[in-house]
Amino acid sequence: MKTPSIYFLLLAMLHVSVLLGQPNARPVIVSPEVHADNSVTFRFYGPMAKEVKLSAQFEKSPLAMTKDDKGVWSITTSPVKPDMYPYAFNVDGISVADPNNTAIFPNEGFQNSVVEITGSSPLIHTLQNVPHGTVSYRYYPSAELGTRPVVIYTPPGYESNPKASYPVLYLLHGTTDTEETWTKVGRAHIILDNLIAQGKAKPMIIVMPYGRAYPVISKSSGSLRNWDNLQEFKKDFFGNLMPFVEKNYRTLTDKNNRAIAGFSGGGGTSLYFGLNNTDTFAYVCGFAPGMLKNEFDRNNEVFFKNAAQANKNLKLFWIGVGKEDGLYAVNQEYMQVLDQKKIKYESLFTDGGHTWMNVKHYLSVIVPKLFN
Amino acid sequence: MKTPSIYFLLLAMLHVSVLLGQPNARPVIVSPEVHADNSVTFRFYGPMAKEVKLSAQFEKSPLAMTKDDKGVWSITTSPVKPDMYPYAFNVDGISVADPNNTAIFPNEGFQNSVVEITGSSPLIHTLQNVPHGTVSYRYYPSAELGTRPVVIYTPPGYESNPKASYPVLYLLHGTTDTEETWTKVGRAHIILDNLIAQGKAKPMIIVMPYGRAYPVISKSSGSLRNWDNLQEFKKDFFGNLMPFVEKNYRTLTDKNNRAIAGFSGGGGTSLYFGLNNTDTFAYVCGFAPGMLKNEFDRNNEVFFKNAAQANKNLKLFWIGVGKEDGLYAVNQEYMQVLDQKKIKYESLFTDGGHTWMNVKHYLSVIVPKLFN
Repeated sequence: MKTPSIYFLLLAMLHVSVLLGQPNARPVIVSPEVHADNSVTFRFYGPMAKEVKLSAQFEKSPLAMTKDDKGVWSITTSPVKPDMYPYAFNVDGISVADPNNTAIFPNEGFQNSVVEITGSSPLIHTLQNVPHGTVSYRYYPSAELGTRPVVIYTPPGYESNPKASYPVLYLLHGTTDTEETWTKVGRAHIILDNLIAQGKAKPMIIVMPYGRAYPVISKSSGSLRNWDNLQEFKKDFFGNLMPFVEKNYRTLTDKNNRAIAGFSGGGGTSLYFGLNNTDTFAYVCGFAPGMLKNEFDRNNEVFFKNAAQANKNLKLFWIGVGKEDGLYAVNQEYMQVLDQKKIKYESLFTDGGHTWMNVKHYLSVIVPKLFN
Repeated sequence: MKTPSIYFLLLAMLHVSVLLGQPNARPVIVSPEVHADNSVTFRFYGPMAKEVKLSAQFEKSPLAMTKDDKGVWSITTSPVKPDMYPYAFNVDGISVADPNNTAIFPNEGFQNSVVEITGSSPLIHTLQNVPHGTVSYRYYPSAELGTRPVVIYTPPGYESNPKASYPVLYLLHGTTDTEETWTKVGRAHIILDNLIAQGKAKPMIIVMPYGRAYPVISKSSGSLRNWDNLQEFKKDFFGNLMPFVEKNYRTLTDKNNRAIAGFSGGGGTSLYFGLNNTDTFAYVCGFAPGMLKNEFDRNNEVFFKNAAQANKNLKLFWIGVGKEDGLYAVNQEYMQVLDQKKIKYESLFTDGGHTWMNVKHYLSVIVPKLFN
């Protein structure tokens, strides 16, 4: 330290106090703090709270936190298996994100934070010193739905090779997620950077749209929209999004250079879009895909009718699901139907439940299988 | 509605309950809900809370919310002047973001949500049906600091005009903000899209880095770093960031095609970087720039020494600040020093305080003045 200065301290306090409309009396909080042994300390400032618990996806049940004399609740966990986990604090029964962590889980139904435990060697989703692609936030127009957001990954070298064209993976998020969830929680861009650097994946474009026509929890009606929502999104996806991507990016546009995959509700959608359109997508993947048994026939109408042709068209039909996932049973029932119809597919059953830890793994498994 | 389906409802509930590790018993909440008369209803589910207040930047002081029999706290405001405002809920003394709003204020020191009241005619920061630029999330390497994030706006037409080169505006955020705050709260990309569409701004690239070397609230030390932090960021800015931008984007690289501007702590930094380097930047702007009187000489050392040359080099030196801003007085003192030294500058004194409502306005005022 050369000249000690209160410059930044003053500004930080000013900023906070102005924004919160109250004097800033709270102590400096660092949360989460990941330790060398992979244990993590979580902290939450709540002097008036009666009970604060940590709900983290590396624990089966919430952990009680304890309060110090300054009103800071904290807990230090046991060493955690390296991965990236969503978590939240439960404060007197209310679930809140960690106010001191800028890594937020983008979701319309809840607010979680995300913590990464890196461990001693980098994982496939860990930011590493390799060439990085570009993650672009774009808008595309829809006559029916207005201006729509989409996040698009272009691989390292895209800008510097202006004559190269690339295959495209369309990646759909879970039901209440947003167009940002695949990068912020799924780390799709980092996983691709790393797999490409390792020579395990072809350079590709990844398209991550806002995966429904209207919010599930509608701002206008307060009610849930479902089949209609999906039909409107289908029109938007094929009528607006794909043409926008193929006009504005250097894409390869035959079915063998198009893949679609998704998680949960978006996994169900990727199967619905992909399997009924195997002349458009030769690669179709579901990560714990959402489905209901009484909707198998409706959602696979074209697919089941043309099973033989679909078998020829598809270069990969892949389903992965965790054995503790609430969707494990229905996915198994679905696979029995596929078997009866002699439809070819690959499956992966992992430990764990309906989590983004599994989803990141599934993405890293399927990407090397694409566009070969 | 054709076939009613519980498909999405089930998935949404599954998702939420799995992630929160508890049954999802809470009612469907829509918050915020902006009404046709510009009043807004805010809602928060907190059956066990004793007191919930709304702290919104369109109100001078917090507003009490009331609880219904389902545990949902709510308030409907009076009509609000159209703009985009940060807000938070104060739940039994704890400030939390709105769990039902995905528009989060990226900040390391606090967590707010953002609500836009559009009004009857679109504002300069309102998403409109005009050509849109691209917002790219990039990483650039630093030997000292590792892999660094930066958000970069390229204007409409950048991709389709591969021989065109563009001027560059470097835009620095406030002290505890992040590289995402200028787009998510400042709407810099939307403001540029709109000004360019109106013929009021030249197409330009905007570079929005993570504006410090280390977090203000250090994850490792828990203490604040200040002058040292700024010096490390200066090395990174000139030694890594600018070369990365000029290598990877089609930029015009003379001083008359480079501008630097920033808010609060980032405003102080933009003056410090820009005014001491007027051979690099001909446009230097501070939005409520952070400064301390006893640091005037230190932070303007080169600038004050070469005032006459700086006057010639600078095509715009601009300071805007609100009359209710805690930094209003020190900025006036700074301008007195500038007057004594016969340094040319433009100033704008507005109503309001240290807010992003003012900052969005300042950006829309200075952009038309750049690169003419």
